[in-house]
Amino acid sequence: MAEFEIDPRILATSEPLCGLKLCDARLQADARWPWIVLSPRKPGARELEHLAPKDRAQLMEEIVVAGAAVRAIGAALGRPVEKLNVGALGNKTPQLHLHVIGRRADDAAWPESVWGPGAARRYDDAELAQAREAALSVLEGLKAPS
Amino acid sequence: MAEFEIDPRILATSEPLCGLKLCDARLQADARWPWIVLSPRKPGARELEHLAPKDRAQLMEEIVVAGAAVRAIGAALGRPVEKLNVGALGNKTPQLHLHVIGRRADDAAWPESVWGPGAARRYDDAELAQAREAALSVLEGLKAPS
Repeated sequence: MAEFEIDPRILATSEPLCGLKLCDARLQADARWPWIVLSPRKPGARELEHLAPKDRAQLMEEIVVAGAAVRAIGAALGRPVEKLNVGALGNKTPQLHLHVIGRRADDAAWPESVWGPGAARRYDDAELAQAREAALSVLEGLKAPS
Repeated sequence: MAEFEIDPRILATSEPLCGLKLCDARLQADARWPWIVLSPRKPGARELEHLAPKDRAQLMEEIVVAGAAVRAIGAALGRPVEKLNVGALGNKTPQLHLHVIGRRADDAAWPESVWGPGAARRYDDAELAQAREAALSVLEGLKAPS
């Protein structure tokens, strides 16, 4: 069986958080939104239909916990999340991955999707530490055994 | 218990397909992409976390069958789908609904998301009939008992 490796384009635009039962969870390196990227560790998967039904159900649960983690990041950074956006696109990076994003009516793209023009704003070190700590406090419950 | 009604903004931009076990499936009235909108029949739900875990698992299965239906529409209209895009946004229409969209490298927005500027192109009557027939042939297996 091929070993799973996260696509380098995902690695280049995100920071590590932790491994969940099915997915690797990473923090999108864009301080405009609290945003987690979930990558199911299934080599070759590009679409949801490439996961087994039990893995799809697990993915749904990890999307929900990632949503809670995104809310925790927003709260920690003083910008509580008002709406979650979830997307599986993959037009540029076909490896199956899910975006879970916290939105607010005063954010940089509202009410449009975040997938449009505009350059990422990097977290500063303090923000990044706060965001990671907040996310990990929520993701803990679904973490893969290490 | 409040009765479920699909948000009028969804009704205004889509055509009926059928009821699945959890969701109403509708065809987005935009011939640029084969595109199904799934609305779980749960009054008040705005986020995935508002569904019970068993309903979330069912939703995931209906997303996968909607993906197959979108592929069937693309094939019927001579534009086979190359990549699926799935999104739950709700920034403009908060009622929980999922978009399942068939994409091609030669489509009107590729590789960007479909959620951006650009006006819908209505199906003509023949296209609409073909698209509905193709979708229903796939959705049949998950249809709600009538």
